Amino acid sequence: MKSLAQLTISQIQQTLRSGEISASDIARQTLENIEQANPTLNAYTHITHQRMLSEAAKIDKLRASGASLPPLAAVPYAVKNLLDVTGQVTLAGASLNSSNPVAKQDAWTVARLASQGALLSGMLNMDAYAYGFTTENSHYGVTRNPRSLDRIAGGSSGGSAAAVAAGLVHFTLGSDTNGSIRVPSSLSGIVGLKPTFGRISRHGSQPFVASLDHIGPMARNSSDLSLVYDAIQGQDSADAFQADQPTGETFSLLSRGQQGLRSAVLGGYFTTWCDDHARAAVQRVAQALEAQEEVQMPQAELARSAAFIISASEGGNQYLPKLRAIPEQFEPLSRERLLAGAMIPSAWYIQAQRFRHQFQQQVLAMFAHWDILIAPATPCAATLIGQENIEINGVTLPTRASMGMLTQPISFLGLPVVSVPLTTASGLPIGVQLIAPPWREDLCLRAAWALEQRGIVSVSSTTVA
Amino acid sequence: MKSLAQLTISQIQQTLRSGEISASDIARQTLENIEQANPTLNAYTHITHQRMLSEAAKIDKLRASGASLPPLAAVPYAVKNLLDVTGQVTLAGASLNSSNPVAKQDAWTVARLASQGALLSGMLNMDAYAYGFTTENSHYGVTRNPRSLDRIAGGSSGGSAAAVAAGLVHFTLGSDTNGSIRVPSSLSGIVGLKPTFGRISRHGSQPFVASLDHIGPMARNSSDLSLVYDAIQGQDSADAFQADQPTGETFSLLSRGQQGLRSAVLGGYFTTWCDDHARAAVQRVAQALEAQEEVQMPQAELARSAAFIISASEGGNQYLPKLRAIPEQFEPLSRERLLAGAMIPSAWYIQAQRFRHQFQQQVLAMFAHWDILIAPATPCAATLIGQENIEINGVTLPTRASMGMLTQPISFLGLPVVSVPLTTASGLPIGVQLIAPPWREDLCLRAAWALEQRGIVSVSSTTVA
Repeated sequence: MKSLAQLTISQIQQTLRSGEISASDIARQTLENIEQANPTLNAYTHITHQRMLSEAAKIDKLRASGASLPPLAAVPYAVKNLLDVTGQVTLAGASLNSSNPVAKQDAWTVARLASQGALLSGMLNMDAYAYGFTTENSHYGVTRNPRSLDRIAGGSSGGSAAAVAAGLVHFTLGSDTNGSIRVPSSLSGIVGLKPTFGRISRHGSQPFVASLDHIGPMARNSSDLSLVYDAIQGQDSADAFQADQPTGETFSLLSRGQQGLRSAVLGGYFTTWCDDHARAAVQRVAQALEAQEEVQMPQAELARSAAFIISASEGGNQYLPKLRAIPEQFEPLSRERLLAGAMIPSAWYIQAQRFRHQFQQQVLAMFAHWDILIAPATPCAATLIGQENIEINGVTLPTRASMGMLTQPISFLGLPVVSVPLTTASGLPIGVQLIAPPWREDLCLRAAWALEQRGIVSVSSTTVA
Repeated sequence: MKSLAQLTISQIQQTLRSGEISASDIARQTLENIEQANPTLNAYTHITHQRMLSEAAKIDKLRASGASLPPLAAVPYAVKNLLDVTGQVTLAGASLNSSNPVAKQDAWTVARLASQGALLSGMLNMDAYAYGFTTENSHYGVTRNPRSLDRIAGGSSGGSAAAVAAGLVHFTLGSDTNGSIRVPSSLSGIVGLKPTFGRISRHGSQPFVASLDHIGPMARNSSDLSLVYDAIQGQDSADAFQADQPTGETFSLLSRGQQGLRSAVLGGYFTTWCDDHARAAVQRVAQALEAQEEVQMPQAELARSAAFIISASEGGNQYLPKLRAIPEQFEPLSRERLLAGAMIPSAWYIQAQRFRHQFQQQVLAMFAHWDILIAPATPCAATLIGQENIEINGVTLPTRASMGMLTQPISFLGLPVVSVPLTTASGLPIGVQLIAPPWREDLCLRAAWALEQRGIVSVSSTTVA
């Protein structure tokens, strides 16, 4: 039999039904793997040992009764530690939250996954407050990249990326405000979906920037990603920021393939601010998707600036009471940014929100011609842990802020994106963004699937001893 | 025959159909009245003489052809000068707009009224930028109150209130961000409707505070008000701030009367910060609507503060480029407020918006028990022109800011309100707010109608020679 990590979600279902393995076997094996790898990776801040075994026991009881199993039965997963898990403290990567009361109920998405039979293995490391792109957390340590252990996994959902890349679980949940799903997916070599803004409920998650935060799944391949997306998408009246959305298409019911996908490469800003490895990856994706044109997204740089202003302002507002009361307990890498953010003039913040609306209208028009826009997910592959700067386009840039420079304008627009992993000439992975119009997650997922079929993107995990 | 000013909108329709009077007669008589009264009142900044005559001629042509007439055929009206009128400069009460290009098309509401046959007589004076409650405009002069010419008409829709109170037109459009329809309606003795936030399109109006601005009608009685409301309510995709609203009820089709209206008086803040005249007016309305309980709206004072912050911040952002370039051309009464507003820390602004959402949820719960909440529209009746202070509850307060202190928390909530006029012992009018749950304009209008039937509110106009 294949090792657990080699099975897809559908294969787990088959193996389970055939009786080759039990849910409890899966849970025990997963927990063993985590306990072995985590001291090296530092992907988990907490392992929900007891819960996983008890969720597995329930599935096995169902199996024994002959009842039909839910679609994610016995699939191991874990969540970024900003999502509420009953009985656990939600850290949001911040030690100042460590004495908070435990969550009384699961986050909406976690509850959905539980009801679909998935097995929660634990909660995952991240940049403090989700404010960062490297998962170098001063209080909870750095998360190492399973593809190259002296390198960052990316952030802020670094633990979520590393757990999947190491084959510890089949999927994880992350959050993406400015790139926090796509950046670690790129640097760790996995697929990540940042859905349309408002598509997936954020109820029960610790907010960072209410008007930009997204929750989304991360996995090793687009089929697993689609199954998880189907399980957690949909309207939740408790999330006030969820726009009235068209009914979510169930991806698995759609015909797959790239037929009819009109794809183009984003030029200008997006091909300027990346290295040759990123450009080569985009080129391979473009060729496979038969994208012949390069199109311009005007004002992408301004969009990034506006996203910075909104993030710092809302983040600053969110943490202001604690910044006043206990500044010494803050992540030193973020304290001053949050303080400065709270003092940004309101006229700037309002202007940034106003520009966002105009920019959205402008970019919507591009999708009259295109289904998929292609851009690198990060300017370069994973940097060394502690590496302060990168050199891109002949300019020395700070690593921590710049890893998100190509994702930031897209999340600012609220567009759905799948980041797919390719392998560069250096052997390190890098992600390419497949960007679709609002509410058309199905298009990004179809494009990702087509690229996998053609062997363009890489779907393996790396075992960490 | 009754004078034009004595007819209701329905009576105009009858008179027109019976052939007693033509639309052109109505237009000419209206324009004559305006030309006679306006030098005293200063309600109009521009009279659309030619347009009114040509709109009237069209109605007369329709009549001659025997075609059926639209529901507002030949009804004279005017609009606050922040609504676009084709071929005219939209001033928003500000001389710095006087060299702007003329509007290429009517505002959405004006276009609707034109299509319903109403006759536009002109554009009306206001506080500069809609930022004020007195219509003491340093560049365009003060608008006088037709009920007492040495007193203010209230603001910022002061011209809109005065034109109706003087019987010059049957209705006007105003705008209300913090009370700018209800305050002048109260001080000038007319009825005004501030609809639910998002109910009436603001497309083609000069914005002041995008997240608080409302457009609404002002008239002499609730039947006229209802007919105009029916004509201009509804969804317009061009107004991005219009929430997805339930389909608007057509008021005139509903059964009228107060049967079944559960009414209560707002106590605390709303009975503390007003004088005995206002309290007596509320008492008479409460009695007529059989409101026996006094209920508390917690945090009304905080809501007012938050509304101030949002207004100053968004107003400051709106005018910042011109504040930088041509500060000397600004209304001296507002220049410093706008500058200071632009510099409010973003954390305050975001907190105010966040509080707004919480407060809305809290107040919604009150409407499980009540259909109508009753409160004074202004702390007192109209003050003398130039009077800097009022004394309320033993405290000396600035007139300009304080006239809106009882309306501000309600518009902050986005609730629909009709302000109905009563006559105080001093002979001056004062308004009482009839506040309903979101999207239930029909309830406020029913309550207003019931009060008119019982002779509680006053529905006359005052001729200004």
